[in-house]
Formats: sequence, C-alpha cells, structure tokens
Amino acid sequence: MATPTPTRPRKRGHDPESVLSIAVEVFNARGYDGTSMEDLARALGVTKSAIYYHVPGKEQLLARALDRALDGLFEMVADERATSGPAIDRLEWVLRRSVRILIDRLPYVTLLLRVRGNSQTEQAALERRREFDRFVARLVKEAAADGSIRPDVDPALMTRLLFGTVNSITEWYQPTRGASADDLADALLKMTFDGLRI
Amino acid sequence: MATPTPTRPRKRGHDPESVLSIAVEVFNARGYDGTSMEDLARALGVTKSAIYYHVPGKEQLLARALDRALDGLFEMVADERATSGPAIDRLEWVLRRSVRILIDRLPYVTLLLRVRGNSQTEQAALERRREFDRFVARLVKEAAADGSIRPDVDPALMTRLLFGTVNSITEWYQPTRGASADDLADALLKMTFDGLRI
Repeated sequence: MATPTPTRPRKRGHDPESVLSIAVEVFNARGYDGTSMEDLARALGVTKSAIYYHVPGKEQLLARALDRALDGLFEMVADERATSGPAIDRLEWVLRRSVRILIDRLPYVTLLLRVRGNSQTEQAALERRREFDRFVARLVKEAAADGSIRPDVDPALMTRLLFGTVNSITEWYQPTRGASADDLADALLKMTFDGLRI
Repeated sequence: MATPTPTRPRKRGHDPESVLSIAVEVFNARGYDGTSMEDLARALGVTKSAIYYHVPGKEQLLARALDRALDGLFEMVADERATSGPAIDRLEWVLRRSVRILIDRLPYVTLLLRVRGNSQTEQAALERRREFDRFVARLVKEAAADGSIRPDVDPALMTRLLFGTVNSITEWYQPTRGASADDLADALLKMTFDGLRI
C-alpha cells in the first residue's frame, strides 16, 4: 500500500469553502469594489504576502459566490415542480423554493442582488439573473392566461412586485432570530396570493 | 470602481437645490463612502479648489438628502388620513402615499434605503426610519386587532413584507418609462390586500 501523500498543513478554517464564505462576508460588509486584497488577508488572519496562497483572486471569489446563488435558482427552474403541472402551482412552488434558497444561501443571494454589472463577471451574473427573471415572467403570464391569477395587473409588473417582496427579505432577515424559511414562505404566499384583507 | 460618475459640466453658481440633486446622483452611482469631494467637483463641473464654495461638506449633503426622503414620510404620518378612521383604510392610504413619495423622491429614498449607520448622520437617519417603521407596525397591529386583516400572519412580519414590497420598487423602477405612481400603488394594493389568486 502506497503511503498517502502528506497533505500540506493548513490553518484551520482556510479550506476553499471557508475562504469563500469569509470573503463573501467581507464583500457584503464593505462592498465588493471597496474590498482590497489586504481586507481579505485581514479577515482570513493571514499576512498580506501570504494572501495569494489562500485566495485565487478577488474576481474569481466573486464569480464563485455569485454562482452559489445562481446555481440554486437554476436547479430550481430545472425541477419538475417548476416545469409541469398547473402554472399557479408551479408559481407557488417557485416562490416557496426561492425563499428557501434565499435563506439557505443568504450572503450569496445578498451579494447577487447588489451586483450592478461593473465587470465581466458581474455582467455574466446579471445575464443569468435576467434569464431567471424571464422564466418567472413566463410563469406569471401562463397563470394569467389560464385564468388562475387576476387579469387586472400587468404580468411583468406582477413579477417585479412578487420578486421584489422575496428579495427584500435580504434587507432585514436575521438568521439567528428570524422566522424559519417555511414560516416566511407561508406568510409571503398568504399575503401575495390570498391578500391580507379579510 | 467602474460606475462612471455622472458628469454635467455646468457653470459656476449652482443653487443649493441642484447641488443636492447632483450630489445624490453621484452618491447613488458610486456609493456615499466611495464618493470623494473630487468626484463631486467633477460632477458639478467646478474645479477641485472651488468645490467648497459650492458644497457645504459631504456629510451635510448626505443629511439634507436623507431628510428629503424622511420629511416626506413624516409629513405623511402626521396627515389626518394616517391618523383617523379605520386602521385598514389608514394602512391602505399610507401604502399608496409611500409609493407616491418613493416615486417623487426616488433618488433620495434610494439613498436612504442604502444607509447602514456608518456615521452620526446615518445613525440619526436610521433612528428616524425605525420610528417610521414603528408607526406602520402599530397600524398593522391595529388592523389585525379590529379584525380587518388576516390574523394568521404575525403583524411584525407582515409589516416587513409590505414595506419590503414598497421599497423594492427602488431596485427596478425607471422614471422615464415606468408605470405611474398611481398604477404602481394600485397593483401593489391589489396584490398585497386582495391577493393575486382568483
């Protein structure tokens, strides 16, 4: 039996996953453009000269972080529950699932929602986000066309308002003392699908 | 930072109103913390050495801009339509009026919603915003207590979701080709008060 190659000793907490998670925290706190490699070194507790050993590059970290959010959304739209059955049920499932993804991947989705297209990486992320928006807009249109949602609100506007409500959760949700993803999704669906007024 | 500073070459002699409006544009494009006095000078079309003749100081401009948004909200909560009559009607009026204020003062409200408390000015603005939130939360609670809105969603959560929906308009609204404030408020009220599902 071959002797296993000794793995390079790492400091605790500096596997690629934790580097990504710490970097995203810093990006959200300081803004991506306002974050320097020095800021990342400080947050990771490594020296300025050692940072490139830990971090592939600021923009690669951004790309990975944005993919973490976007991959969740695209797995969802490929799911059978998003693609077959009555449009209203698919829309409900997509909204519930979006709340779940937002809560499970909160810092990544928060970062995604702040992207304005300042680099190729950001442009690519915005294009994937627009593709997701188009998927949801088609779903709302289908539900309007088959008569399961009210016909007196423009479907494009309805899509904006629905996802505006979902996305606004990133502005105030506190993981440690907030409602569960299921409770949040229930409340959001009650309000947007059935209305608050009795 | 890749976002270009909006440039508007102008002659000397800006009135305070246009200085404020140009500054807020720059703050929203570059982020307040990322805006230098030099950026403001460029946007105003004045020299670096002349900037203090036009601009009282970055933080005073921020304070004025945030007041522009907050004063609108506090005039609203002092209005009779927000303080007397059935809670559900007051809540409806406050939501409609909030959409109107957001559209009429879009860059100022956008700036307010991005404030994170990084200075005394920002802390003071956050405190006024929290006071406004408490006013709305009380209104939602009253409407829940008198049985005019559904009892199965926590009023605090409902308040977050309602104003999350309103505030999310700043993320996508385009003044030049968007719906009117009335159309937006109608759609928002139909969705949140009466629900989308038929």
